[in-house]
Amino acid sequence: MPDKADTGISRRRMLRRTGFALAGVSSAAPSARAAAADLPPWMLEQGAPVSENPYGVPSPFEKSVVRITGGKQPFPTSAHMLTPLQDLDGIITPNGLHYVRDHGGTPAIDPDRHRLLVHGMVDRPLSFGMDDLTRFPSVSRIHFLECSGNTPLYKSGKPDWSVQMTHGLVSCAEWTGVRLSDVLAEAGVQPGAAWMLAEGADAAALTRSIPVAKALDDAILAYAQNGERLRPEQGYPLRLLLPGYEGNTCVKWLRRLKLGDQPFQTREETSKYTSLMPDGIARQFNFTMEAKSVITRPSPGCGPKQPGFCEISGLAWSGHGRVVRVEVSTDGGAIWRDAALQDPVLPKCLTRFRLPWTWDGGPALLQSRTTDEKGEVQPTRERLLAARGTHYYYHYNAINTWRLAPGGEVTLAL
Amino acid sequence: MPDKADTGISRRRMLRRTGFALAGVSSAAPSARAAAADLPPWMLEQGAPVSENPYGVPSPFEKSVVRITGGKQPFPTSAHMLTPLQDLDGIITPNGLHYVRDHGGTPAIDPDRHRLLVHGMVDRPLSFGMDDLTRFPSVSRIHFLECSGNTPLYKSGKPDWSVQMTHGLVSCAEWTGVRLSDVLAEAGVQPGAAWMLAEGADAAALTRSIPVAKALDDAILAYAQNGERLRPEQGYPLRLLLPGYEGNTCVKWLRRLKLGDQPFQTREETSKYTSLMPDGIARQFNFTMEAKSVITRPSPGCGPKQPGFCEISGLAWSGHGRVVRVEVSTDGGAIWRDAALQDPVLPKCLTRFRLPWTWDGGPALLQSRTTDEKGEVQPTRERLLAARGTHYYYHYNAINTWRLAPGGEVTLAL
Repeated sequence: MPDKADTGISRRRMLRRTGFALAGVSSAAPSARAAAADLPPWMLEQGAPVSENPYGVPSPFEKSVVRITGGKQPFPTSAHMLTPLQDLDGIITPNGLHYVRDHGGTPAIDPDRHRLLVHGMVDRPLSFGMDDLTRFPSVSRIHFLECSGNTPLYKSGKPDWSVQMTHGLVSCAEWTGVRLSDVLAEAGVQPGAAWMLAEGADAAALTRSIPVAKALDDAILAYAQNGERLRPEQGYPLRLLLPGYEGNTCVKWLRRLKLGDQPFQTREETSKYTSLMPDGIARQFNFTMEAKSVITRPSPGCGPKQPGFCEISGLAWSGHGRVVRVEVSTDGGAIWRDAALQDPVLPKCLTRFRLPWTWDGGPALLQSRTTDEKGEVQPTRERLLAARGTHYYYHYNAINTWRLAPGGEVTLAL
Repeated sequence: MPDKADTGISRRRMLRRTGFALAGVSSAAPSARAAAADLPPWMLEQGAPVSENPYGVPSPFEKSVVRITGGKQPFPTSAHMLTPLQDLDGIITPNGLHYVRDHGGTPAIDPDRHRLLVHGMVDRPLSFGMDDLTRFPSVSRIHFLECSGNTPLYKSGKPDWSVQMTHGLVSCAEWTGVRLSDVLAEAGVQPGAAWMLAEGADAAALTRSIPVAKALDDAILAYAQNGERLRPEQGYPLRLLLPGYEGNTCVKWLRRLKLGDQPFQTREETSKYTSLMPDGIARQFNFTMEAKSVITRPSPGCGPKQPGFCEISGLAWSGHGRVVRVEVSTDGGAIWRDAALQDPVLPKCLTRFRLPWTWDGGPALLQSRTTDEKGEVQPTRERLLAARGTHYYYHYNAINTWRLAPGGEVTLAL
């Protein structure tokens, strides 16, 4: 059919009104009645009965929308699976696509046999079954979760890396559980208890030391994610959720909390999740994920197909609280424009931002920069590298740059 | 292990502080060190590699948390699958558990071949492919969706019906798409166009007449649900989303919008989705779902296991806007107490409510009553039946009553 949008009045009207032209839209004028009656094959026979699959799955046409591994894994059970941010909309990550990181595979835990032990500097050491925990008053909150190793761009990074490769270790869900402060109140935290060891019931027995102040603030013992019980790879049946903190501190398959007066100096904090500063000092207990954002579309593999209207959309977040501002630049940082933030804008939660843009077909450098309610502004790559030095690895939150070429191809620029 | 909670100081302290006793909690005092070292079997071997299943699935221990059919279906492809509300937390329904209702099964639509025709009383009839539509500016909103036939309690209803059976045709998701008003602006709605026919591309070719005022207000052409593309049974690749309206008007597999000056009087509105009033007049075009709520726990199959603390939790919603109040009664409506509403409270969205309660072990009648921002208050069953008569069927939104027996069993009371 002729493309009315490319000729005459309607094109000018569209451009005037909304600033975008729809090159692929067909005028259906000569044949609207025929088109209405021109039935596609799926209208000519009954569809599939849904009762064959009482738990639904995505369309077979979406089979490429899956988690991928970020590279060669040291062992099959050291998982590192990235969320396909380029294919997602809104802020909620479906549970089947939430990022995964573990050190010993996913244990198959029988919830009726799972216990949580609370001991150490408490008045009454207690052991809880899942039924005991779910009897506490419940709370639901939508929070992001980010691996501290997300965005491994200190040294590596290839031009064809997708946003799934560069930023796919962040996801967002509505978590439900009980306030850890309620559970600790039952055990009775003793004066002087300043740290809490959290241990997972996986083969790696991941353990982290958490400040008691955080445990008593907004920590949740989570048993549900996006309405349903946790997925096995997210910690089924119980996970420690520390809003805004590094993902690895949100211990999965949680089996033990031990209160003490000092950090426990586990292997995860004496070596792995530390950061070597320029002066040779290792930084420990760097818990909060900083203000960060990324444009998810356009992005590598998802470039605009032709010049004209092109919405720039992405995600922003901060472990310090709410995102208050996201600015977008299309010229590598010379001019910044405020993007619209999609409601609801929640603390320690992914925030979707959007900016209408008309691509002139020329080269462009697409960037986003977020500011959180604490006033922290996402730094440039140059500033971040200068401050942290070349031995740093975790907590990379620099402004990301996508290079848009005249043909519509998008690549990572470092 | 001895149960410290049943004896002495700690029980009194718990009751004093939080009002609930945890009968199943074990004191771990004599053996906290041993318990910490007593490793469960899943810590003794490596877990499963996640990469075997890049799109995740729930734990095998949760296999009973699925949609069920609400009764005998007239044909295998006339689906009627209910959300397991008793097993869910928060407000988001996972896509695999969103309720389903269709009249001709689920078509398997190739998105690259799917078209949306906009014609009738428009200046420029247009035909859009999916790539054309997704180029429009996008919008995401969290909304409930409810079948107008949800809660079939005018005449039927058995004491052992679960909340899945009574209220399972309501679900909630974050929907993403484009504003229908933007798309209609491209076509140019002609003066006098007051109604819009929406047609689905399934074998049933479901068609409904929608007021143009609604189409231009908050209607969305939705292509994504909870982040990912729509599931096939939810309308993949395109669904008309009319926030607050009957589910059947939110036409799935949307292929055609025709503007006209009168309603189109399709079979779905001359017979099926009409309501016979006491005076013998059939009520048509009763679009908005009214203020409603239900307690999801305790509920049949999910009664308290022992007297003591028992959180009452449920869901409230209204097609008119925000829920502003939910009251809960435990004595069949004599005394009402305000429940807490979980943030975020969004318009035309499920709202989770909670009330701490101490069950004395005696018989109780549990009810919830919602009030929306328009001032509409959920009616009693008696008032609703008196107003609508016995031939009515759709839009049942009366206060629901669960009967709690001394043993902890919960049944539906009518």
